Amino acid sequence: MMEYRKIKDEDDHDVASDLESLKGKSHTVASTNIAMATLGGGSSERTNWKRKGVVTCALTILTSSQAILIVWSKRAGKYEYSVTTANFLVETLKCALSLLALTRIWKNEGVTDDNRLSTTYDEVKVFPIPAALYLFKNLLQYYIFAYVDAPGYQILKNLNIISTGVLYRIILKKKLSEIQWAGFILLCCGCTTAQLNSNSDRVLQTSLPGWIMAIVMALLSGFAGVYTEAIIKKRPSRNINVQNFWLYVFGMAFNAIAIVIQDFDAVANKGFFHGYSFITVLMILNHALSGIAVSMVMKYADNIVKVYSTSVAMLLTAVVSVFLFNFHLSLAFFLGSTVVSVSVYLHSAGKLR
Amino acid sequence: MMEYRKIKDEDDHDVASDLESLKGKSHTVASTNIAMATLGGGSSERTNWKRKGVVTCALTILTSSQAILIVWSKRAGKYEYSVTTANFLVETLKCALSLLALTRIWKNEGVTDDNRLSTTYDEVKVFPIPAALYLFKNLLQYYIFAYVDAPGYQILKNLNIISTGVLYRIILKKKLSEIQWAGFILLCCGCTTAQLNSNSDRVLQTSLPGWIMAIVMALLSGFAGVYTEAIIKKRPSRNINVQNFWLYVFGMAFNAIAIVIQDFDAVANKGFFHGYSFITVLMILNHALSGIAVSMVMKYADNIVKVYSTSVAMLLTAVVSVFLFNFHLSLAFFLGSTVVSVSVYLHSAGKLR
Repeated sequence: MMEYRKIKDEDDHDVASDLESLKGKSHTVASTNIAMATLGGGSSERTNWKRKGVVTCALTILTSSQAILIVWSKRAGKYEYSVTTANFLVETLKCALSLLALTRIWKNEGVTDDNRLSTTYDEVKVFPIPAALYLFKNLLQYYIFAYVDAPGYQILKNLNIISTGVLYRIILKKKLSEIQWAGFILLCCGCTTAQLNSNSDRVLQTSLPGWIMAIVMALLSGFAGVYTEAIIKKRPSRNINVQNFWLYVFGMAFNAIAIVIQDFDAVANKGFFHGYSFITVLMILNHALSGIAVSMVMKYADNIVKVYSTSVAMLLTAVVSVFLFNFHLSLAFFLGSTVVSVSVYLHSAGKLR
Repeated sequence: MMEYRKIKDEDDHDVASDLESLKGKSHTVASTNIAMATLGGGSSERTNWKRKGVVTCALTILTSSQAILIVWSKRAGKYEYSVTTANFLVETLKCALSLLALTRIWKNEGVTDDNRLSTTYDEVKVFPIPAALYLFKNLLQYYIFAYVDAPGYQILKNLNIISTGVLYRIILKKKLSEIQWAGFILLCCGCTTAQLNSNSDRVLQTSLPGWIMAIVMALLSGFAGVYTEAIIKKRPSRNINVQNFWLYVFGMAFNAIAIVIQDFDAVANKGFFHGYSFITVLMILNHALSGIAVSMVMKYADNIVKVYSTSVAMLLTAVVSVFLFNFHLSLAFFLGSTVVSVSVYLHSAGKLR
């Protein structure tokens, strides 16, 4: 099961505002929406919902297929490339795809204030922050294995769900209803339950420094996600592809730093592309697309939707793996999936009016 | 963990209306309550709540200490008495305690229509039904072990939670809100999760006849509980001790039948009290008191409260066992307990207005 989670970190890697001004903006957006709805417009409301649904589904499907590619590549015994070079290529590909989308938009709509690539220091200054947070988190990851084993780490990573919820509330000042909070706690419990196996109890023996590191990593990861949403939503009319372009440029830069810190020797001796295979290429392609889907979810939905989407993807992956790899589903998986399903229901039933 | 569940069957053994007339009655009671509340009375409302709370807490505490007694008696290796004779004594003791309570009430309040022991055929005709349902279920229990092992049976017994909810809705025609249904599904998942161990997955290999028997047993147990509530609530002003007395008389009769069917040889050869110990006496005492608490919960609350109460008791037992017997709590237990706690919250937050 650990593979399903493995990629979760990487796909939020990419994205990176000035929080105070966001709060003002989102308030304006909300009042505009209400004004439009009361004016009997409603059709733009519907477009928003449709767009939200499409990007959420895309993220879910891409995340599941990512996990399946990882299982596949492990089964094929091909996992010998350096992860940092792959991450760098993912950022580069996302940058290229954003530029490609922008050239099409410029051709159709012309260059406007909202879709021009050039930016101001004021707009761009916050973009490196999420990428820097992820870099720091990935470096910590090397040290936590002194305190927790790999399957234990996969269990502890579910703390990300709680940290995202708490930081979403504190930083973005968005409210969840009590029922939605109940749903969020259940999401965390359900995902963990679905991953339980006979060795899971070892995680309870984790020492205090291990717990502290796991919590710090969950906070860094949650903070990076929430901060990305803040940056992207600060300028609602700004084209998402421009915002992505700048996020990914800094993603490239920070991943270049990661190559130097973590894999300098391997790259210098065996070459940048050592160990790459067809599956690796597919994985890079998939990571790039799902990274873009994450940005879209941040733009048109929020971090909560993202967490639900990637959690449901984890369950989908296991079900698909039954057919593809003859996986056996455990009773714990069925119980966890039921809890996650109820949690999804509670999130929608508990909406604040 | 299997011991915690073991006793659950026995404590609802005791109790057993005419459903159509109940629906009419409970409607009248509800409107009386509303009328009293709107008249600014409220104090009788408060008394009701207090009584409900007291009987629920009593049931929870008695059920946990029951389970602890069972663990204790197994640890001491003393579990050699025949369960049917113990059950018969439990019913007899409950009968005696009801009579004792009634003599005190007669002394204080005098004999009235509501507290006199004599009854009509119309009142008493439905009282044997719950006891008969339990007898039938306990006989089935001997056959299910051909299809499921004992730990697997403990897992399947959580189906009782769902069957009680469904039959409560269908038979008593009482509504639960969608949020409360979500809570109820979670209660079932949470209890099962808390009981997971490395062998639990075997239950998924249960054959079709095994599943059918488990579902039939869950329906019989749920039906007996719901039917008991119907009988007791049919005559709201009737003293609960009189209702209990008649229920327990039939409980004694049906348990006498069970002795003949299941343990005739053992009782004939080794005597009625063979294998009894001090712990056995404590267990019989505890079962009798918790049986009475179940009846009280049926009178002043309902089957849903009873299910929550006994489920929370199961978790309490495990926590207490950590201190008493050096039990180790599993990660699954923590996850299951959290899900059960959220479920209790949802049951109260989701109340229909």
